Formats: sequence, C-alpha cells, structure tokens
Amino acid sequence: MADECDVLIIGAGPAGLMLGCWLARTGTKTRIIDRRATKITRGHADGVQCRTIEIFQSFGIADRIEKEGNELAVPTSRIPDTEPNTSRFRHRVLNQGRIEDFLIDCMKTGGLTVERSVSPLSMEHSDSPTETHPVIVKVQHLIPATDETVDVSSGLYRSNILSDEEFNRSTAKSGKIETIKAKYVVGCDGARSWTRNQLGFSLEGDSANIYWGVMDARPITDLPDVRVKVVLHSANSGSLLIVPRERNLVRFYIQMGTILPGEKLDPSAQSPEKIIESARKILTPYTLECPEVEWWSVYEIGQRICKDVSFKNRVFLAGDAFHTHSPKGGQGMNFSMSDSYNLGWKLAACAKGLASPSILNTYGGERVEVARELIEFDHKVSRLFSGKPAITAESEGVSMAEFQALWVRMGKWTSGTAVVYNSSLLIADSTAAKTELAKNIIIGSHFESHMVLCYADAHAVQLADKLVADGRWRLIVFAGDLGNQNQLQRFNDLCSELKNAPKSPIRKYTAPDADLNSFIEVLTLTSSPRNGLSYSAFPELARPFVGKFRYPTYDQVFSDEVSYLDGGGKAYTGYGVDPDGPGCAVLVRPDQHIADVRGFEDCVEKLGQFFDGFMIQK
Amino acid sequence: MADECDVLIIGAGPAGLMLGCWLARTGTKTRIIDRRATKITRGHADGVQCRTIEIFQSFGIADRIEKEGNELAVPTSRIPDTEPNTSRFRHRVLNQGRIEDFLIDCMKTGGLTVERSVSPLSMEHSDSPTETHPVIVKVQHLIPATDETVDVSSGLYRSNILSDEEFNRSTAKSGKIETIKAKYVVGCDGARSWTRNQLGFSLEGDSANIYWGVMDARPITDLPDVRVKVVLHSANSGSLLIVPRERNLVRFYIQMGTILPGEKLDPSAQSPEKIIESARKILTPYTLECPEVEWWSVYEIGQRICKDVSFKNRVFLAGDAFHTHSPKGGQGMNFSMSDSYNLGWKLAACAKGLASPSILNTYGGERVEVARELIEFDHKVSRLFSGKPAITAESEGVSMAEFQALWVRMGKWTSGTAVVYNSSLLIADSTAAKTELAKNIIIGSHFESHMVLCYADAHAVQLADKLVADGRWRLIVFAGDLGNQNQLQRFNDLCSELKNAPKSPIRKYTAPDADLNSFIEVLTLTSSPRNGLSYSAFPELARPFVGKFRYPTYDQVFSDEVSYLDGGGKAYTGYGVDPDGPGCAVLVRPDQHIADVRGFEDCVEKLGQFFDGFMIQK
Repeated sequence: MADECDVLIIGAGPAGLMLGCWLARTGTKTRIIDRRATKITRGHADGVQCRTIEIFQSFGIADRIEKEGNELAVPTSRIPDTEPNTSRFRHRVLNQGRIEDFLIDCMKTGGLTVERSVSPLSMEHSDSPTETHPVIVKVQHLIPATDETVDVSSGLYRSNILSDEEFNRSTAKSGKIETIKAKYVVGCDGARSWTRNQLGFSLEGDSANIYWGVMDARPITDLPDVRVKVVLHSANSGSLLIVPRERNLVRFYIQMGTILPGEKLDPSAQSPEKIIESARKILTPYTLECPEVEWWSVYEIGQRICKDVSFKNRVFLAGDAFHTHSPKGGQGMNFSMSDSYNLGWKLAACAKGLASPSILNTYGGERVEVARELIEFDHKVSRLFSGKPAITAESEGVSMAEFQALWVRMGKWTSGTAVVYNSSLLIADSTAAKTELAKNIIIGSHFESHMVLCYADAHAVQLADKLVADGRWRLIVFAGDLGNQNQLQRFNDLCSELKNAPKSPIRKYTAPDADLNSFIEVLTLTSSPRNGLSYSAFPELARPFVGKFRYPTYDQVFSDEVSYLDGGGKAYTGYGVDPDGPGCAVLVRPDQHIADVRGFEDCVEKLGQFFDGFMIQK
Repeated sequence: MADECDVLIIGAGPAGLMLGCWLARTGTKTRIIDRRATKITRGHADGVQCRTIEIFQSFGIADRIEKEGNELAVPTSRIPDTEPNTSRFRHRVLNQGRIEDFLIDCMKTGGLTVERSVSPLSMEHSDSPTETHPVIVKVQHLIPATDETVDVSSGLYRSNILSDEEFNRSTAKSGKIETIKAKYVVGCDGARSWTRNQLGFSLEGDSANIYWGVMDARPITDLPDVRVKVVLHSANSGSLLIVPRERNLVRFYIQMGTILPGEKLDPSAQSPEKIIESARKILTPYTLECPEVEWWSVYEIGQRICKDVSFKNRVFLAGDAFHTHSPKGGQGMNFSMSDSYNLGWKLAACAKGLASPSILNTYGGERVEVARELIEFDHKVSRLFSGKPAITAESEGVSMAEFQALWVRMGKWTSGTAVVYNSSLLIADSTAAKTELAKNIIIGSHFESHMVLCYADAHAVQLADKLVADGRWRLIVFAGDLGNQNQLQRFNDLCSELKNAPKSPIRKYTAPDADLNSFIEVLTLTSSPRNGLSYSAFPELARPFVGKFRYPTYDQVFSDEVSYLDGGGKAYTGYGVDPDGPGCAVLVRPDQHIADVRGFEDCVEKLGQFFDGFMIQK
C-alpha cells in the first residue's frame, strides 16, 4: 500500500526546510525525507541576509536569528555592511545548523518533522488524467551504523572536492522499502541532486580552478581588527576573508591555491593545519594561532545553473539542486531558501485545488531568471576575490577602488533585496498598473516596510510585520485623508464594492462560511491621524468580525502618524503615495512580492480579472 | 538521612523562581519546593515593569517578554505609559504563568527544577557553631489526586477572600516525609506564608473594605478605545481599569462594591457573570459582551508589611510573604522578583564562603525600606482608584487632574526604577564618594544604560547589557580621552595598580588560578574614538586573556562614539562624566546597583577598603 501525500520534499537542508515551513503552516499534507541520519551542527553557510530575516519574520522566528546571530560591522569610516534603509533588519552571521534548527522548530508547530535515514530509490510519473497523486517515489529506510564515529569538526565529507563515490559512501544498512504517491515532489537535495539526475537535467557552467579553505576558529592574533569583517589581499599569497561570528568564533575563507583543469584535489591531503598555514602566509607579518578549530572544509569554486527546474509542473528543483556558486557573496543558503519561499504557497494553493496548476509555471519563470543574474554577480565577485590587488591604478589585476565600488553597488544583491519578478499570471504588467499612485512601490519587488501606528491600540508597528506567511494575499489600501469627507466616501465605497460586488475577488473566492479576511486580508493605512475618526466608524471590510464569536479584528487598520516613542509618520512619503491624494490599493502576494497597484475606481474590476486568471471558484 | 543543600526555597512563584535563577546561575546547591501540584497558567499578575525587563535581560531572557508581552499604549496626546528615557525597555503586559515559564526555563539551564507537591511540615534551627547547615526543614511529599477536575478559568482558589481553611483545602494524599538541612531557607510562599508563620512574624497594616473583580476576556463592545490602557471613573458605579493584553485579551479590573469591616465575602456567590454585570454598569452607555472568560477572580485590597524579614540571617522572607498590596500599581509580581534579585547573589557569595554573612543584613535593610515606600505609594494610588471623581475642581472626591499628576509623578515607581538603596556594607557613603566626577550617577540606584560602541567589533551595544547576572561585580572605568598621552598614562597606571597592587581587591580576592575578570569585571569606556588607539594597545586588565587557551576578551572595552546605524555617542553626557576630564571608576554590584564612584587616584585604596569590609580572602 502506497502512502499518499500532497507534497514530498527530498532533502532537509535550508531549501527543503523552508518549503516544509510553508506547507506545514498552510496545512498541506507533506513528507520531508533526508538520506543523512543526522543534521549538520557546525560550519557550512553562515551569512543571513536582511531579506532572509524578513522571510523568517513572516514565520514569526526572526527574533531567534537576531538573538543568536552576530551582527557584522566594519571598521568605522569604511563601507558599512548593511546600507541604511535597506531593511528593518540587518545582516547577521550564524551557522547553518542553527538556521536549520529554527526552521525545524517552525515546521514542528505545523506538525511536520523530518524523516531521516530515508533515501530515494526511484521516481515515476503517471500520465493518467484521473490520477490525483501522479508522482510515485520508492524510498528506502536506512539503518545507520550506531558505532560510527564521526569527526564533527571536518566538513570534508560533504565537500565538492569528493568524487561521487566518496560522497555517497555510507555504512548504513538497507531497511524496508516504501512507496510514496505525491501530488508534487520537490528535490531540495543539493548540488549532487538525485532528483535532478532522475529527471535527466544537468547543471551547466564553468568550474573555476581556484580552491578555498574555510574554517571556524577562535584565533589568537596580533592582527588589529579580527572582530570586524575584513578582506585581505596579499601580494603573492592570495586573499583572506574574515567574518566575525557568534560565540567569539571567526569564519576564515582562505585562498589555498590553484589547480589545473581536470586535476582533482586529494581529500586525504587536506587538513586544518594546512588551512592555518595558508592563512598565516596571507596574514604575514601578523601572527595567527588557532588552538581549537570548530569546523573546517575545503572546496572548489563552481558557478553552475540548471535551466530546467520542473517536470510537467509535478516535480521541481530548489536550492543548490539547480544553482551552485561561490560562497563569497553569502548567497547560497539565502538564495536556496528564497527559491522555496517562492514555491511553497503556490504548491499549497494547487494541492488544495484553490488555484490552477498553471501558476506553477511562474516558479521556474521567476527563479531561473534571478538565479542567472545571481551567477553573473557571483562571477564578478569571485574574480575580484581571486585576483591579485593592483599595486597602482594602472597595473593589471584588481584595484581596491574597483573592489569597493562593486561591493557597494551590489549591496542590494548581498542583502537579498534586489530580486524583482517580471510580469506573469501572478505579477501584473507594470505598464498597465497605476504605479504613478505609489511612486516608490515596484511591481514584482518585495513590499518594503515602514513604521506605522496601529489604529486600535496606538502601537508603532512595522507594516511588513503584518504580512504573515499563512498563504493569504494582502490588499494594502492607502486610504488617504479620511478627515476629508469626500475621500472617506470614496474609501467606504471601495470597501463596500470589495465586499459585495459579484466581480470582487473577495466576494468570489472567499469560501462561503469563512471569515471575510481568510482569502485576502485588507490592510488599511490612513494618512489622517487616529483621533480624526473613531475605530468603530471603519467599515466591516476594514475590521472584519471573525471566528465563532465574531470578535472584531484590531490589527488591520493603521495610521501614518508619528509615535510618541518610536518615530514613524513617514510611510506615505516612503511608499511615494500622496497623503492628500486619491489613495491607491497595492496587491501583495503571500510571499510579500507586489502583484499590482490600482486606483480605487478600477481596483475591484482589475483585481477581479487578475484572480480570475488562476483562481478556481468553489 | 537528611539531604543537604545550600539554599532551600519554599514556594515557586515569581519571587522563588527569580531566586532560583540566581542560585542556579552561580552554581549554588539549591532545592525549590512548592506544595501545589501544578503551576498557574492563566491570570494573576500581568504587568511587567521596565526595570523587571532589565533584570530579565541580565539573565538573557528579556527577549521572551518582548516577543510575547503586549506593549501598553495610551490614547495619543494623553499620558504615555512609559516615559521616554526611563529605560531601554518599556512596560509590557503578559500573564504571570508565562513569566514563570521563562524563569523556570532559565533555572533549568543551571540545572535547577521545581519540586512540586512538596509541602513543608516543620522548621528548626541549630545553634551549634560547628553546624554548616543549621536550618532543618521536614517536608512532606504529596500524591495529588489524579481524577480531580479543576476549573482553570477561576482564580478564586488562590484569592484572599478565602478563609485559611478554604485556601488550604486539598485532595492530595500524604506521601513520604523527608528532612532537608540547609545553610539558608527562603520563604517565597506568598501572603499566607507558612515560613513567616513558623518564624512568628506577622503582616501589619490595614485591609481596606473595597473589593475588586479581575477578569481576562476578549470583549465585544462599542467602547471606542478597548485596545488602549484606560481608567474609567463612573459617577456612581465605581472605577474600571482596562489593560489590553497579548492575544487580543483584555484585563479588566472592576470595582465591585464595598464591604463592612469584619464582613466576609461569600466565595460561592462570586462569578464571572457578576463581574461582567459590574463592568457593564460602569461602562454605561457602552455595551459589553464577553463570550469567553479566560480567567477571573475576586479579591480585597490589603496593604500590609512585615517589618522582620530574616531570622538570624539564616531564614528569609521574600515577595508577598512580607508585603502585600493592591494590584493597581502593577507592583506585586515585579516587587517580589526585585526582592530575590537583591538577595540571590548575596546568598550565593555566603554559601560559597566568599563573603561574610554580615552582608545578609543588607537584604532586610534595603528591601523593607523600599517596601514601606511602596506601600505608601500604593495607598495613594488605591485611594484614587476607589474614590469617586470630582464633578468640579472644588467638590470633594478625587479630581482627574490630581489623578493624572500622581500617575506622572509616580512614573518612576511604576517603572520600577525608583529604588535607591541607602549606604551600608554594600553601598558606599555617597557623601564620601567622588560623585562630582559622574554627576548623573546616583549611588544606591541601578546603573542606567546608554548606547556605546564595542571597541573590538564596532557594534553598538547597550552598556547595561554587559551587566550579566553571573555574580560578578563590575568596575566601569570612564577612561576619558585616550588620545591625550597624559590621560592614557593615568589610565594605564590605574589598570596596572588594579592588577598588581597588594591592596587591590582584584589582586586580593580573585582566586589564584582564576581568570583576571572572574571576581570583578572591568568595563572600560573611552570618550575618544576607536581609530585613535589600537585595541591591542589596551593593557591586559582591560582585555584579559581567559580560559584554558588564554583567548583574548573582546567585550570589555567600549567607545562613546556614534554608530553608523544606531546613533549613540551620548554616554558621557548621559552619565554626567566630562569627556575631557580626569575620568572615574564606578563600582556596580552583581544586582546592577551602584556601590561607589571613585577617581583614578583613590580608586584602588578605597575599593580595597570597601571589599575588605566583607570579603573573605582564600
């Protein structure tokens, strides 16, 4: 008997776990398997971008990163690590194992846990039109050897310098074989993806011949600045990146040397001592001692991408399974999680029969394109990291000025806030939208945050904090000055039309017995202050009555007012909306990307057409 | 065979748990018992003062309150709930059960857990001078009835309107009796304290004849402001306090009526319906429906204090066991935790033989005095809450203006930041100290926080965040302008003297093999910027080498510099220290209260004398 689930996730790294969070939160029946018996605890990726923390915030777990992660700083009067106004959060560094812990805990609150020591064996797809669960995956449960001793400080066993045979070597015994039938399968199984190989897809691109050592250690050194992020270029011994980390750890990225094309590094010849020795050469004349190395590894830089990421909209690839790159830009883990943050809510909507499977085309459309841009960026950064510094502005090599300029220009990339999706079934055509009504809102980009005042309780809140990852769309209504009777009437008319008009997506696609805010949550932001209009005077759509007892909601109406203690009052300016103007309505997807901007008059009709493009009426 | 421990805590409410945190963190052998089988989960106290959150921060758990607790706000242009610059934290409201959860988790990280269903039977004290564990307590382990059904929404079973017989009624069966020998016993067993009764001490004071209903509910009402903190005085139906809480709950405090002296309320006549009915009368003409009452209780206001809080410096009382009062000022739970925050580190030092037991006299000296001040404040507030509003400024009763003025004037009390301890063995005489060197630092008060820049990593940090509750004293050295060679020399001389002079307390009382910062941690704050002097140029005392591998510390030196992203740069001004002046050294106790202020020249000698007064040299 085959077990049936909506989604089977293969691989429980950052991409798989982020997907698991989405699916668990939306009540989608999901299994997540991983062939390894244990999760990683040390080393691996460690940079957490602003945008990633925003995503964690949407699951209510950003505070865990903020508490444990180290904030990067750079020497005063040099380049700041996070540009002001990039995000309400700042870059942090924290080891991948902890990031995964937070996602695992988050998944658990939705009832989903990782099944470890489960390895996929085969995958088939049924073309029968009546088959609701057409992807059939056979998996083998493994019995790990219990007496195996592992050197937890070495990350070599997962490095890309290993051959496939070395990489897949295991002492686990085979256990029972199980058949899983799934509506959808997502391969989050890393650079050597089993799922990708099953589909016959391949990564394309170069594999640079520079290899790096990476090490987490507590150094003893007379280098003046070991607790700030530093890039060192030595004249003849390569480059070194120092990233101060939590618990006084320092992450070292060290250029170890070059290898000829086709040459293979000998894993058994690698050691932490060799890495420290390489670091010493670069650091000369400063001293370096590392009495304890918590984790280390050696890898080659490889920039590759897979141009296909889905098979018949039933099997998908996410994360390193479809793009790999140098860790220098701090992109790998972040970008992988962004993949599945894009995919999760779409799969949930399709698995529940709420949306047409055609929306799944947008996953590849959106993510492959940004992956390409990322690889291009990565190439540039890697070339600079590996190049020798220019002695003078005229000589060959990489000038320090060029390096610094790139770093600043790419700030949006390194913060994860550069991603803009093109128009599709899920992103309106920006040339047809009313973008002039919200001049700083970019269709396809993520919704930026500004401090606003909660109308009901006068608390200052970040507006984007209300964009909780629960699968709902948001319509952010810039209501304008409600002290103006004409504008108030226009606002009330819009709310009435959204609630009652047959063509309104809220009327059409909200389930008959469900709360008024269960499909699209309307968030109202007034430019007029709280004392101008009583909270109870707002129409029902703006503060719907919900649940068994029809309690009023208190968290959907806001004012762009200065808080006594927190500042704020700059949201209309920030979003580029005229506080005395006609207002507008901004449609935001469940993944916080902006789908459309509309005026009050064409809002209901245009949004109706938008949702009619993919929603299924019950 | 009797079990021996350093400290036996009787009662696992907020006072007992806070004490448990201190003792667990300092590695003091402790047991904590409670006669109840289960902890509370709903209702009870709910206000968390700024100062309490500062205390939680010292245990690293403030973020849990910040995440779950609701922040109070009041209608714009009325009185703010937290005055700006009171603290780096703000008042929060969160039910007592969660606060206790956080403390329980914190205790657990130090290996201490509550033993429930354990009731004390008898207590004796041995006068033998050779007895190291002179307090002998017999306790009975109880076997709770497992089939008992409890109405978790009613708090009446713990209310002060119950008779002792009703209060102590239990269906638990008696189990084995155990003898515990302790160096110290602390009764944190509430207003009906068994420990206090054993000592023959009693609470003194009045018991006002006004009784209140209290209720946590999600109201449906047309009252315009139910999500802001509101005090309502009706002409004839008494007063009502509305406190918006977490999860859309609202805490109602409702004046229910008056009773004659000696009269006793009938517990069986109380009900949530009666409380709602009373609230409706006060709220007229507004409507009120409460479909779900999460918790409710009824209690009388009683303002009482016990003037003795210790027996032979071996048995102590903390929290409600020695002071009870109206919950109106939000003081009860906060003040109780402050008691044991004052006591914990002193008991730890004595139990380990590091300090003379004479320091334990300061517990009563400090806490009874502030408890008296609190009761006085409480009287005033309660009178205002129970009084009718004045119709005109001339008529009798309480004027609104008087009420508001008191509320503002008492802001320091309600934030918990008003407490100043008088001079004692543990607080220097402020008239002899060099207070002119730090004009805004008040000896006996808690050390306030300002934003500073960490010298090693350029991070902005709150200086008070470095005052971790681990039992260590701190010497905060305002080093001044170290770009000035003369001042640099004076600073280096001070560090050298602190490290090497035989009379220096650091030299004298730091254990021979222990780290240089293990008894007193020196925190240096320069007025000169970070780029003026390399971190490695600081003397060893300022950045000691610690642990097995002698790693350098990076978190003891700071600069009063503006952070690129976080502001700051106002610490010298804030503390009232001249940035171009001679500097000073501020001694801060393990509980963050300021013990002394000294100039560089008399620092070592005076601090030596101070610690010689109670420290025991090994």
